[in-house]
Amino acid sequence: MRNIKLTIEYDGKRYLGWQRLGDSDKTIQGKIESVINQMTGEKIEITGSGRTDAGTHARGQVANFKTNTELSRPEMLSFFNRYLPSDIVVKKVEEMPERFHARYNVKGKQYSYYVWNDPIPTAFERYHSFYVPQELDLAKMQEACEKLIGTHDFLGFSALKKSKKSTTRTIDEIAIEQEGSMLHFTFIADGFLHKMVRILMGTILAIGSGDLGLEVIDEVLTEKVRKAAGETAPAQGLFLDEVYY
Amino acid sequence: MRNIKLTIEYDGKRYLGWQRLGDSDKTIQGKIESVINQMTGEKIEITGSGRTDAGTHARGQVANFKTNTELSRPEMLSFFNRYLPSDIVVKKVEEMPERFHARYNVKGKQYSYYVWNDPIPTAFERYHSFYVPQELDLAKMQEACEKLIGTHDFLGFSALKKSKKSTTRTIDEIAIEQEGSMLHFTFIADGFLHKMVRILMGTILAIGSGDLGLEVIDEVLTEKVRKAAGETAPAQGLFLDEVYY
Repeated sequence: MRNIKLTIEYDGKRYLGWQRLGDSDKTIQGKIESVINQMTGEKIEITGSGRTDAGTHARGQVANFKTNTELSRPEMLSFFNRYLPSDIVVKKVEEMPERFHARYNVKGKQYSYYVWNDPIPTAFERYHSFYVPQELDLAKMQEACEKLIGTHDFLGFSALKKSKKSTTRTIDEIAIEQEGSMLHFTFIADGFLHKMVRILMGTILAIGSGDLGLEVIDEVLTEKVRKAAGETAPAQGLFLDEVYY
Repeated sequence: MRNIKLTIEYDGKRYLGWQRLGDSDKTIQGKIESVINQMTGEKIEITGSGRTDAGTHARGQVANFKTNTELSRPEMLSFFNRYLPSDIVVKKVEEMPERFHARYNVKGKQYSYYVWNDPIPTAFERYHSFYVPQELDLAKMQEACEKLIGTHDFLGFSALKKSKKSTTRTIDEIAIEQEGSMLHFTFIADGFLHKMVRILMGTILAIGSGDLGLEVIDEVLTEKVRKAAGETAPAQGLFLDEVYY
């Protein structure tokens, strides 16, 4: 059987998230599977690199599936982009060795988070950023990011109550770029726990606005209690940029 | 009476265009007037710098209105952005001399047009650009722009059949910038005729794809017949950037 890897871009606004829920048509996975079934005549389940929440976007989500279709890669690519809704785009179709698995083989991921920081809102980026009208202290937020970089148990910065699996992750980079009124945060790590980027963002922003002090980071990393961290920043500002294998 | 100037940003996707049509609620003008009436208790009509078509966007549309309200400019600004739908944003409220008129006093305008030029579509910019998958000859399009710059009778590049008023306009600049797969066209002129930017864009793109030759430009400028020009490019790629006074 062939093992096909897809690189997928989507605007998550209209969807309940990546993962198919029963027969629901409101998930990215569900939409893609239904086009694959139409394309191959096979009933195929795809494996994503991981879930994304309702409303979260992706520039480079990855999934794979096994198929017996004889369609060429360019034929599949054009079939996908002809039949998928316009807010889901398959950017690449690749042929992989049989052992490739989109979730098990993940080595790391990059996420972006966008904050529109201006007294005046934005008409164009309103569904692709989180609107924060208050002034933010960029230097304080940089310090917060420095403290988060490295290998830590991030349980307190996740939506998990407890976990049998390890909740230790290594963050390689958190960068903040200012592009006019837009703040662009980039996170690179070997993995992220459930809602981790959004809770980190909520905490970083609360530090930037002065609602929380810098010491909260050490506190949450040591005590591993979600309660002390900031609120979960909304999904609409979050983009899965790239999955590393 | 006070004379108030507004600078307005809007995502035109959901609207029938700038100009109010009877009592329709599906126009930008209608939405803004209804918030002004709510804010001032007066029944006020606003004057825009000009219309924009259904689906066209603006980063800097300008309008003015006369009012007796005693609200301060910051109070008006925050009232607007609290009560307008999130796809219409008032960016600036200014106090003007009595004689200022948003349409009569226009000295020039800048428009942008965005073309997504890639075999793969875009999930994020699909409502803010025109998707052209065919290869485009950038050098040929540059030449076409050079030919359009200057003072000409643009009747043949407009949706007007004929006109009692002058249809001569001066284009100061047409620039093409490439930002990844996005082509960004900028037009600056002392004025634009109805649908002129979209017909110019349709023609420039037809020259870029090889469907029309460069000679079509002189032909349309001389013979002033719309038929010879390219098709009207869709409204969704068009942005009114700035109005000069």
